[in-house]
Amino acid sequence: MAKITFLGAGSTVFAKNVLGDCMHTPALQGFELALFDIDPQRLADSERMLNNLKRSSSSTCIIKSYSNRKEALRGAKYVVNAIQVGGYDPCTITDFEVPKKYGLRQTIADTVGIGGIFRNLRTIPVMLDFAADMREVCPNALFLNYTNPMAVLTQVMITQGGVNTVGLCHSVQSCIPDLFRDLELDPTGVQSKIAGINHMAWLLEVTKDGKDLYPEIKRRAAEKQKEQHHDRVRYEMLLKFGYYNTESSEHTAEYHPYFIKQRYPELIEKLNIPLDEYPRRCVNQIKRWTEMREEIVNNADLEHARSREYASYILEAIETGTPFKIGGNVLNTGLIPNLPREACVEVPCLVDKSGVTPTYVGDLPPQLAALNRTNINTQLLTIEAAVTGKKEHIYHAAMLDPHTAAELSLDDIVALCDDLIEAHDDWLPEFH
Amino acid sequence: MAKITFLGAGSTVFAKNVLGDCMHTPALQGFELALFDIDPQRLADSERMLNNLKRSSSSTCIIKSYSNRKEALRGAKYVVNAIQVGGYDPCTITDFEVPKKYGLRQTIADTVGIGGIFRNLRTIPVMLDFAADMREVCPNALFLNYTNPMAVLTQVMITQGGVNTVGLCHSVQSCIPDLFRDLELDPTGVQSKIAGINHMAWLLEVTKDGKDLYPEIKRRAAEKQKEQHHDRVRYEMLLKFGYYNTESSEHTAEYHPYFIKQRYPELIEKLNIPLDEYPRRCVNQIKRWTEMREEIVNNADLEHARSREYASYILEAIETGTPFKIGGNVLNTGLIPNLPREACVEVPCLVDKSGVTPTYVGDLPPQLAALNRTNINTQLLTIEAAVTGKKEHIYHAAMLDPHTAAELSLDDIVALCDDLIEAHDDWLPEFH
Amino acid sequence: MAKITFLGAGSTVFAKNVLGDCMHTPALQGFELALFDIDPQRLADSERMLNNLKRSSSSTCIIKSYSNRKEALRGAKYVVNAIQVGGYDPCTITDFEVPKKYGLRQTIADTVGIGGIFRNLRTIPVMLDFAADMREVCPNALFLNYTNPMAVLTQVMITQGGVNTVGLCHSVQSCIPDLFRDLELDPTGVQSKIAGINHMAWLLEVTKDGKDLYPEIKRRAAEKQKEQHHDRVRYEMLLKFGYYNTESSEHTAEYHPYFIKQRYPELIEKLNIPLDEYPRRCVNQIKRWTEMREEIVNNADLEHARSREYASYILEAIETGTPFKIGGNVLNTGLIPNLPREACVEVPCLVDKSGVTPTYVGDLPPQLAALNRTNINTQLLTIEAAVTGKKEHIYHAAMLDPHTAAELSLDDIVALCDDLIEAHDDWLPEFH
Amino acid sequence: MAKITFLGAGSTVFAKNVLGDCMHTPALQGFELALFDIDPQRLADSERMLNNLKRSSSSTCIIKSYSNRKEALRGAKYVVNAIQVGGYDPCTITDFEVPKKYGLRQTIADTVGIGGIFRNLRTIPVMLDFAADMREVCPNALFLNYTNPMAVLTQVMITQGGVNTVGLCHSVQSCIPDLFRDLELDPTGVQSKIAGINHMAWLLEVTKDGKDLYPEIKRRAAEKQKEQHHDRVRYEMLLKFGYYNTESSEHTAEYHPYFIKQRYPELIEKLNIPLDEYPRRCVNQIKRWTEMREEIVNNADLEHARSREYASYILEAIETGTPFKIGGNVLNTGLIPNLPREACVEVPCLVDKSGVTPTYVGDLPPQLAALNRTNINTQLLTIEAAVTGKKEHIYHAAMLDPHTAAELSLDDIVALCDDLIEAHDDWLPEFH
Repeated sequence: MAKITFLGAGSTVFAKNVLGDCMHTPALQGFELALFDIDPQRLADSERMLNNLKRSSSSTCIIKSYSNRKEALRGAKYVVNAIQVGGYDPCTITDFEVPKKYGLRQTIADTVGIGGIFRNLRTIPVMLDFAADMREVCPNALFLNYTNPMAVLTQVMITQGGVNTVGLCHSVQSCIPDLFRDLELDPTGVQSKIAGINHMAWLLEVTKDGKDLYPEIKRRAAEKQKEQHHDRVRYEMLLKFGYYNTESSEHTAEYHPYFIKQRYPELIEKLNIPLDEYPRRCVNQIKRWTEMREEIVNNADLEHARSREYASYILEAIETGTPFKIGGNVLNTGLIPNLPREACVEVPCLVDKSGVTPTYVGDLPPQLAALNRTNINTQLLTIEAAVTGKKEHIYHAAMLDPHTAAELSLDDIVALCDDLIEAHDDWLPEFH
Repeated sequence: MAKITFLGAGSTVFAKNVLGDCMHTPALQGFELALFDIDPQRLADSERMLNNLKRSSSSTCIIKSYSNRKEALRGAKYVVNAIQVGGYDPCTITDFEVPKKYGLRQTIADTVGIGGIFRNLRTIPVMLDFAADMREVCPNALFLNYTNPMAVLTQVMITQGGVNTVGLCHSVQSCIPDLFRDLELDPTGVQSKIAGINHMAWLLEVTKDGKDLYPEIKRRAAEKQKEQHHDRVRYEMLLKFGYYNTESSEHTAEYHPYFIKQRYPELIEKLNIPLDEYPRRCVNQIKRWTEMREEIVNNADLEHARSREYASYILEAIETGTPFKIGGNVLNTGLIPNLPREACVEVPCLVDKSGVTPTYVGDLPPQLAALNRTNINTQLLTIEAAVTGKKEHIYHAAMLDPHTAAELSLDDIVALCDDLIEAHDDWLPEFH
Repeated sequence: MAKITFLGAGSTVFAKNVLGDCMHTPALQGFELALFDIDPQRLADSERMLNNLKRSSSSTCIIKSYSNRKEALRGAKYVVNAIQVGGYDPCTITDFEVPKKYGLRQTIADTVGIGGIFRNLRTIPVMLDFAADMREVCPNALFLNYTNPMAVLTQVMITQGGVNTVGLCHSVQSCIPDLFRDLELDPTGVQSKIAGINHMAWLLEVTKDGKDLYPEIKRRAAEKQKEQHHDRVRYEMLLKFGYYNTESSEHTAEYHPYFIKQRYPELIEKLNIPLDEYPRRCVNQIKRWTEMREEIVNNADLEHARSREYASYILEAIETGTPFKIGGNVLNTGLIPNLPREACVEVPCLVDKSGVTPTYVGDLPPQLAALNRTNINTQLLTIEAAVTGKKEHIYHAAMLDPHTAAELSLDDIVALCDDLIEAHDDWLPEFH
Repeated sequence: MAKITFLGAGSTVFAKNVLGDCMHTPALQGFELALFDIDPQRLADSERMLNNLKRSSSSTCIIKSYSNRKEALRGAKYVVNAIQVGGYDPCTITDFEVPKKYGLRQTIADTVGIGGIFRNLRTIPVMLDFAADMREVCPNALFLNYTNPMAVLTQVMITQGGVNTVGLCHSVQSCIPDLFRDLELDPTGVQSKIAGINHMAWLLEVTKDGKDLYPEIKRRAAEKQKEQHHDRVRYEMLLKFGYYNTESSEHTAEYHPYFIKQRYPELIEKLNIPLDEYPRRCVNQIKRWTEMREEIVNNADLEHARSREYASYILEAIETGTPFKIGGNVLNTGLIPNLPREACVEVPCLVDKSGVTPTYVGDLPPQLAALNRTNINTQLLTIEAAVTGKKEHIYHAAMLDPHTAAELSLDDIVALCDDLIEAHDDWLPEFH
């Protein structure tokens, strides 16, 4: 019996999406869904929720919780990873509050930026533990990583962990729907090509019947931008750099040195930048969870419609052999020649019986490659810090982050990193 | 109205397959099928045959013959190429008879080898004429090349012709069926990965439910090889080099220095090598055509079942956006890092609305890369000869061909090339 | 008779160095020194100066002025380029004053940064005119480029101009002497390895008898940095990023987002950053020139000692075949794999009869590669702007400049670029 | 006190050249010359010889013999390797006699070919033992490898041994002198560029005062080739492929499928190919040694003039910092892009205080790259066999050798390899 292991299964809502999708997938019937989480209460909640779903969907999947991680992984064919290390309290609070003392403001802090760096540093050791287990008990499993920061963690799992990994995000499949809905365009029959790095991948081509839609998109975008709306930063990037990207304004605002600037405080309002958005979301989520827990965990009639998450479609394509195309995060083995070969890139991948196979993209337009490189700089130095254990590479990662570097002096960056290391305490044992 | 242009439409049987397939493809209904051939009689035959098919299939495709090539190409969305330059008489006869005088025997002569070199040399100028027309009248068309020698012609169309080209062959999709039929294995649910160069691509992986099938395949192959059969050379390669390849024994025999050897005349019988197979086939085909012409060209009830040829599936995937996977011939943009970057490689490609996108393969096992390189050597020098117009590069192409080099001395290779140039007469004006 | 052509020969002091060196080089005796400048007065000054030198040095070189550039280049074996387009007044004034209105301060503005971008844009068309002449009248000449911005202009001459070019700067050969003098260390017998990009190349290795000198260098640097001195930014970089680089603090300050910051005005004094240094130098130089002109131009006893400039040593090595090692600017043909292949890099080169041959460097430490990439971003986009003539790529170049991006918003960057294009007037005809 | 260790010091004549050169090099005075050989008698001979030389040259080098290899290596700055594993008797005899039974004739058998493969296989384990010692007792030493087969052994020392290695051969520095002497041309002032793989490197450029000398060289070569002479194969290659190469005819004859052919027995005489040349030389050398031993080992007045061997010049350049250019064997880190990256290439290298640094070459002419690739095929498979211990890769190495593959069938190649493995007995324990 084939086995799908879900690490971080206590994320009940996300587990509902991914494993609920699996239960609705004919090719995955009879699979064991192996649940693991370090929080026994949340694990139990998810197990109950899934049993509810199983009943309502008549799925033949077997749901099983594990208290031992290695046993959860043993013999797995697929491993889905959705863990978060350190949680909202204390780690997310730390990620936002400490930089704030230096006047460095953030919105999401889960990708690059000072918050992204430390989220990586505390997550990498845990991921490498997973990798060690997997090499032992399920060496051929495919690891579907959903945990952020996507690019660094995926790259580390492959190059340091020796695990067959693809990194997955919701942003690629939302790209065209978001854009076309916002601009009141009809997406039917549209061809698109998306590539770059996670959270900063670019809509390189968008055509219909061979006609380039960008001129019309830019015309409408310029019009839209004349008034206030929720996604202004992203449209600002489109109008200035010529291409739409995969992440929303609240993410994009902190990837560049242009938007959250003490020298231009008016931009926050003008561009509608939601500072501290992520901690606010966390608090809301926690609150919402207490409200919705009952109806999800203890609802024998719980239903689920197959979502747009890639995971179940990937597994289905591998099991059935019917080709499926995803935007996946993989090593840049020359796929985008004008990005560093060491980087993790997000490119179209073919999925079928042979697994996830990346396709060749070619050079990005030079301004897009340049923007990607500024973020890859921080990613590569974060990995260097994690792999070598050298504190100076943490400083370097922060010094190369375009937003941090734009706002702070070198001495303040060092002091900030030291404060963050201090505040992380046992979450970063390697650097104490 | 979208247009599919077929160059070499006088190949009635092949046109029946490819365009008959198109007429059976819902997404291609209403397309114009534009036929062109330099032989008006055969062109007329194909047109009648297709009109027969149209009636029997109720297709809404429009069938139209052109006597002017540029008009046939004007505005095309897809161009299918199946021409042959020089024909059986005189050129194929030349390809076989002249080398025979030097004791150099061949089987098919359509890939590399001395015959493949000259087939390329006489075809390249014609293909570049197509390319010039296409840049003018259908610059965005996708060119599906079926003409051999595949690797060189595809590469030339891309690098010299500036045309969006994919090279297509029947051998990739036959690979698993052939092997499993021969060894009486069940191909259901088998995963495979095939890559290399055209006619010498390798079955790199063949598994079922995660289990490597090669040990069993090799066991059966060794058993089979104990008795006489029709595909001995290919199994010899499998047993000696560890991997099954995409071409049949009659092709493979002349790609290597191992099989057709004056020093080992007994190998011909032992390995069942059909010398002069291709001219024999040509004669039979011509004969068969006179026999079957009537029932194809003038048969109002002519029927057609959709074949396994890639063309209609590619067009369907592009039109509908439903992903389809092919083994396609494309430039080696780092897809197989241990083959020369200048080479044309045959790799899995994803086809969808974005067109034909090659996937990343990675390094081949070293012995397979080495074998491929010996053939790529000749291919690259053939292109060098065609592009520079320098006769010495024709000699070099022949001197680097493993089979020719094994059999002949340098002086005899030069003399043989000179004889072939002489015999080609007006078919190679550039070298006279 | 072999010919050395000097473009921008009106730079009398620099011409004295380079051509004075040549007159002192045995292997270059009898060569014609062909002078060209668009300013006839300065050209005449240089000619008289060189004739003075010739007398005092007993050189047999022939000194000849040309009013026609193509004639000056005709048949040249070597071309030395030291032009400046636009001069101090008006262009350098523009480069500094317009950004100042936006609060963007600079020090030298001859490399990257907003000033470097526009210096490139007005110089590239002139350089491509040189290239067109050279392809016609001296296609095999070696072009020694001394004109800044070095990286972009050298790259453009090679890739767009089709001219055999090496870019030369004084900073590589000063690197070890500067460092060792500053830190009161003895440079005798020291081994060093320097590579990166022009003005931001790194002292990758510095050893003596196999012992790494960096620990002692860093100890002394930390000590030195406790007090005020003239090169504080450079030492700040050394202490923070671990490696000494080839350019002085007044240059380095504007290559990074860390030093000239409106949010940290105190850094200017603390790090002793000479804002507006270059225009001040220009004014001084112009003044000094009126003072020293008499003694250089009309001094029959003018003397010259061979300088450390690379040019005469390069020519000597090519003429004699005795190997000489330089730090030269060349295309990155994989020499530094973790910098973009499209970039121009500064690496050790071997010079001998075969000309200037770059050596392989390998990957830079990741933080250094990252810093280089931030500047290469702007360089590549500047070239894109010049080659395509698209104004948006000028904006992109400025938006990717780490210093400009740190200080200004996107809208201000666009407005600043528009102001600079406007102010450049006829100096940038392509963008009007 | 710095130390030069000589492995295989019992090669008295070669030790005289290399270490005699060192004793004549001012920069190496006072160095310890550490001698090691597994043959105590020959070691003692070399020690006496060197003491003779020391007296006559007044060198202050210290000569010391070691019976323990690791002690000989301990603390070495330079290691010169000139060992031979298996010697004339039995291994060279085996290399020639066993293939002869299959009708496969050879001349030197020290590079590629069936003899070269087995010479590699028995030498690699010994070299890897050296590497293990060096990583322990002199991890920073530079290893100068003179042992053949050069390309494979150098590559193995670098990639498997982890030792800083350059491979050195006499053929590069002889290339121009040989050619110009043979054709009665004056080599004064000639510029040349040589690159490729060891024993098959190409004279890519040969000019004088900017004029290409190849037309005249080819004219004279064609003339010379009309009569019998000692280097006909090499000239045959020059006339057919357009470039002169670094190895003599007796080597070159067996690197290609063109010359030693059972089907063309007349070529042996016509091209003056000395079959079994190497064993003949060995016998002569052994005989000559007994004759000359006395005058070398026991001659208190023994003298030595500094030879053309690279070793002492390399050490001198590293010690003094005065640049020296060599043709060295190094990993192909993209230096010759159209040869496989995994290969070992022979390219111009700069030697100075920073050690041996390879220069960038660029693409070879396609026919030369193709010829190199045929030999690299065998080299890479030989390494694969040695590294994996898999016997089938020995077969593959032989099957890819152009000469072996031209002469023998696959079955005979397997049988021949099995015979050679058998005959090697304890010399190839890994494959028994």
